[in-house]
Amino acid sequence: MLDSVAHASVAGILAEALRETESVFERQLASDFPAVNQLCRHVERYRGKMLRPTLVILCGLATAPAPTERRSITERHCMVACVAEMIHMATLVHDDVLDEATTRRRGATVNSLRGNETAVMLGDYLISNAFHLCSQVGDARLNLAFGAVTNTLCEGELIQLHHRDDTSLDEATYFEIIRRKTAVLVGACCRFGAQLSGAPAQQVDALDRFGMAVGTAFQIQDDVLDLAGKEEVVGKSLGRDFEKGKMTLPLILLLGRASPAERAAALEAIAAHDDAALRTIAERSGALAQARERAVGIVAGARRELDALPESPVRDLLHELAERTVRREF
Amino acid sequence: MLDSVAHASVAGILAEALRETESVFERQLASDFPAVNQLCRHVERYRGKMLRPTLVILCGLATAPAPTERRSITERHCMVACVAEMIHMATLVHDDVLDEATTRRRGATVNSLRGNETAVMLGDYLISNAFHLCSQVGDARLNLAFGAVTNTLCEGELIQLHHRDDTSLDEATYFEIIRRKTAVLVGACCRFGAQLSGAPAQQVDALDRFGMAVGTAFQIQDDVLDLAGKEEVVGKSLGRDFEKGKMTLPLILLLGRASPAERAAALEAIAAHDDAALRTIAERSGALAQARERAVGIVAGARRELDALPESPVRDLLHELAERTVRREF
Repeated sequence: MLDSVAHASVAGILAEALRETESVFERQLASDFPAVNQLCRHVERYRGKMLRPTLVILCGLATAPAPTERRSITERHCMVACVAEMIHMATLVHDDVLDEATTRRRGATVNSLRGNETAVMLGDYLISNAFHLCSQVGDARLNLAFGAVTNTLCEGELIQLHHRDDTSLDEATYFEIIRRKTAVLVGACCRFGAQLSGAPAQQVDALDRFGMAVGTAFQIQDDVLDLAGKEEVVGKSLGRDFEKGKMTLPLILLLGRASPAERAAALEAIAAHDDAALRTIAERSGALAQARERAVGIVAGARRELDALPESPVRDLLHELAERTVRREF
Repeated sequence: MLDSVAHASVAGILAEALRETESVFERQLASDFPAVNQLCRHVERYRGKMLRPTLVILCGLATAPAPTERRSITERHCMVACVAEMIHMATLVHDDVLDEATTRRRGATVNSLRGNETAVMLGDYLISNAFHLCSQVGDARLNLAFGAVTNTLCEGELIQLHHRDDTSLDEATYFEIIRRKTAVLVGACCRFGAQLSGAPAQQVDALDRFGMAVGTAFQIQDDVLDLAGKEEVVGKSLGRDFEKGKMTLPLILLLGRASPAERAAALEAIAAHDDAALRTIAERSGALAQARERAVGIVAGARRELDALPESPVRDLLHELAERTVRREF
């Protein structure tokens, strides 16, 4: 039976820890230069779902001896949450340069407002501050682990760029790309959160797999929304993926299952950057539904990993968060 | 009296340590993905003067108990040398995106060959690997110090972008920009090299100031060459600074000392991107000579810092290196 008082209390702890994470963020980025501060304030508006910090906090709570008590979340949890969010935001800022996107989280992107040069440097500034903040935790192993994660992330982006306009990209390569560019960081958030709470290896590993799966499902849902979402609901430039030659799961499934005629029509729509036509083909062929099903299946797998945790309202919240990944419209 | 045998021996140790640094570089960047390896091999061609690794090694030697013995240079010196070079190369790759440069070290730039997107991501990959390698040294304080350096470096770049096309930029702001974007990293190379050799604080501080001054002079010489150098000698796109609205020391001095007529002619040349005209005005006005003199004076100050070191052939080499900074034509 759900204990709604305990749930509200955990939600309160999470909200407080996220506010603390935001304070760490602002303190870390504070510069002597008004021009730099202004840019950082702009980029703070990119903060959306705070998925990564939320996972650090919840996994930290779920594996702590007292999962419903505020004292289970330390300053180090919030610092690590902030490092992950900074890395994520740096990739958003640089992705927007790559994608030539003009809108992000209902606001103009840095690159469209201030030029690509400033966007590139601001992204670098975020990466640099992420590592600087990470070093303040004072555990060289954490730096090493975060460095390995960002190496993997950049490789994912480079491999994706290498396969630009490659309409023969197969599913295995697609999953390898999103594993690297999205899933590994989300998995690391869960792992680091649990490690900071002193969780046993079995729980740490299960939560890493949980996060990897949630990150993968999240990315597939992004792909689906880029093709089938409504720009006014999603709040960012859509149809960008295939404009920039990025193959997404719905397109890969579409090309894999299509009749010769459908395939020809789809390739034509891709070449012509006709996203309305492509959406229609993807819906009619069932490829969009199949991509959604794939994400649903991955979330189910993620949720099974949570069996490694003791029952608690925090674990319930993790179930809910995983579920929401594939239900979200933005 | 110069001991030429000792000098040759130190030059040999330096060459060997730089080769070791290159091996660290290649091992660190080795990826499972051929496409990523190919990009990294391309970027290795950017390696030019190896100023930063050279300073880590020489300052490490100069402050070691046995400055002319190979064993004075440890693997950690080479790792730190490599971290500094990776950070530097990341800034080159991203600067080329900012500058829309097409040539670097006599080869095509990554951005011109593979697009801005790949150049942005490759730069990120270098930064990430730099921090990952830094973490392998196993000293969290080193990570913290490097993070502070790269924060400062990015701020320097952001402030420079903020002042783009600002023909009223004053000397003080100019020096603050190059302190942050160039001098601080070069100073840190000297400091870290000495610290890894267990040098006393007084030598560490003197070498930090030495490196800051050398870095500053180096940047001024770059400014001078961008205006007055020959592209076929320098080996990279020239005249870019003022095309991209970057104010350099010769231009600041020119506008500061010019008669109203000269000033008007210079502003017109800047607006028209007429670098031949601008070079003529800068030469005639004496601003180019004045910028060169400024660099020479800064190098003289740098060399005085070397008095903090015991006499050795390594110290002689540091004198020579500082001297060459302002004599170089490329």
